[in-house]
Amino acid sequence: MVAVRGYPYVQLVPTRWNDNDVYGHVNNTVHYLAMDTVINAWLIRHAGLDIATGPTMGLCVESGCRYLAPVSYPDGMVVGLRISRLGTSSVRWEVAIDRESDGGRIAEGAFVHVFVDRPTRRPIAITAAMRAEMEPLVVHQAD
Amino acid sequence: MVAVRGYPYVQLVPTRWNDNDVYGHVNNTVHYLAMDTVINAWLIRHAGLDIATGPTMGLCVESGCRYLAPVSYPDGMVVGLRISRLGTSSVRWEVAIDRESDGGRIAEGAFVHVFVDRPTRRPIAITAAMRAEMEPLVVHQAD
Amino acid sequence: MVAVRGYPYVQLVPTRWNDNDVYGHVNNTVHYLAMDTVINAWLIRHAGLDIATGPTMGLCVESGCRYLAPVSYPDGMVVGLRISRLGTSSVRWEVAIDRESDGGRIAEGAFVHVFVDRPTRRPIAITAAMRAEMEPLVVHQAD
Amino acid sequence: MVAVRGYPYVQLVPTRWNDNDVYGHVNNTVHYLAMDTVINAWLIRHAGLDIATGPTMGLCVESGCRYLAPVSYPDGMVVGLRISRLGTSSVRWEVAIDRESDGGRIAEGAFVHVFVDRPTRRPIAITAAMRAEMEPLVVHQAD
Repeated sequence: MVAVRGYPYVQLVPTRWNDNDVYGHVNNTVHYLAMDTVINAWLIRHAGLDIATGPTMGLCVESGCRYLAPVSYPDGMVVGLRISRLGTSSVRWEVAIDRESDGGRIAEGAFVHVFVDRPTRRPIAITAAMRAEMEPLVVHQAD
Repeated sequence: MVAVRGYPYVQLVPTRWNDNDVYGHVNNTVHYLAMDTVINAWLIRHAGLDIATGPTMGLCVESGCRYLAPVSYPDGMVVGLRISRLGTSSVRWEVAIDRESDGGRIAEGAFVHVFVDRPTRRPIAITAAMRAEMEPLVVHQAD
Repeated sequence: MVAVRGYPYVQLVPTRWNDNDVYGHVNNTVHYLAMDTVINAWLIRHAGLDIATGPTMGLCVESGCRYLAPVSYPDGMVVGLRISRLGTSSVRWEVAIDRESDGGRIAEGAFVHVFVDRPTRRPIAITAAMRAEMEPLVVHQAD
Repeated sequence: MVAVRGYPYVQLVPTRWNDNDVYGHVNNTVHYLAMDTVINAWLIRHAGLDIATGPTMGLCVESGCRYLAPVSYPDGMVVGLRISRLGTSSVRWEVAIDRESDGGRIAEGAFVHVFVDRPTRRPIAITAAMRAEMEPLVVHQAD
């Protein structure tokens, strides 16, 4: 996997046939699907999140994306992930998405998770164990 | 259709079974699908956009959304639409999304289109006819 | 809502911008999204299914569709629903999908649900109350 | 990539966060997305299909799937592909989908493409070059 400079974690998200819309490019919503997929995969594999029955859920309270260039199926999206703000119960993730074929930058986005208690859906502090996993993803730069 | 105060155009977007994700609510990406659907339906029906073969295409260069409350299938999304900035070749759309069942505000989002020439994909001025249709949607308030 | 001859229950499923694929028509997977949406909406509203916490879940074990003609966003899909086989724990749903704009037949599909106990995910008999609601949808004809 | 016995071509389709529906498993429509994705990727990479501007398009006229076991994000789908009928202008593809994690069979499906002329959308004979690529995928067994 090619690195994405400035983003410590990288995952490839292949495109699908119907990600392309009528204009022939991956639709703008797919970039958000990619963010959700990479962030949650990281949480499950590296930070112990159990999406089926765990006591904590990460809910999205804000997201945004700037689109810099198109990508089309069957090309892939290389998604770099970092954290720009690690709060008591919230995390602001930032992603950069590059084309798999030539490394060109496609988009840059952000996604804010608030962790909540599953039964009450009220904010809850990120556990010390999850926070320890997250800290290496924190970058100290402006977004 | 219930009005959405401050948004001159309103369209209902029903939810689908698999809009709900594993946490039981409509996934955060569906709000962007709703924006794209309502904006393009308005452009097709009210401003002469021909998505199949027309000379002009609206490309998304930036989008964002704040999520205020959940909604779950089979409830519906009532999407209000307005324009907060009408430039030479670009439009900044703003949407508010309310629950169909009780009118509660679910989300507020924005979506920036740049109109481009289909063959070259370079920015092109919005036509006078399309601009005339857009002007009643322009609201003069901060976002 | 226009009727769909031979299908006792009818629901409109509007299309979305990105249902259209690169060939300019609603992608073949969207017809299955429509089936799932209409069947579950009927189960929730007419037969007491509680998808969030109810004791019973309907799992899809088989589906199929024949595509007769295209439909394109922003046109809509009028989905007719009937039951062709009502077993002890399973139901075979049949749908016909017509274009909203001109009533032309788009597709005919089938979808087999097996009802299971939520904790064990083992087949369970359809309750007498749900069966009573389903019976008026049963049609006695070959598919 | 693990082989799928009886299917000459194999491609991994990773799952995405929102492929899981409210019941915690990949929704039944995602299997069709995977078929479309793998078949078209094969056509583009191995048989010269140009989805953007080529003279020929493959339209889906029939599809179907039997679901044998669940799979859940972030697990992956290993999709095996073969051809069970190669006609003058049509192809009947068959797929088997196994879980990436343990190789268990998830589903078996079929998907019939008719190749059409792009301007007229009328059936057209598969070219000799494309047919030559397809022949190694043809298996001589009942489905």
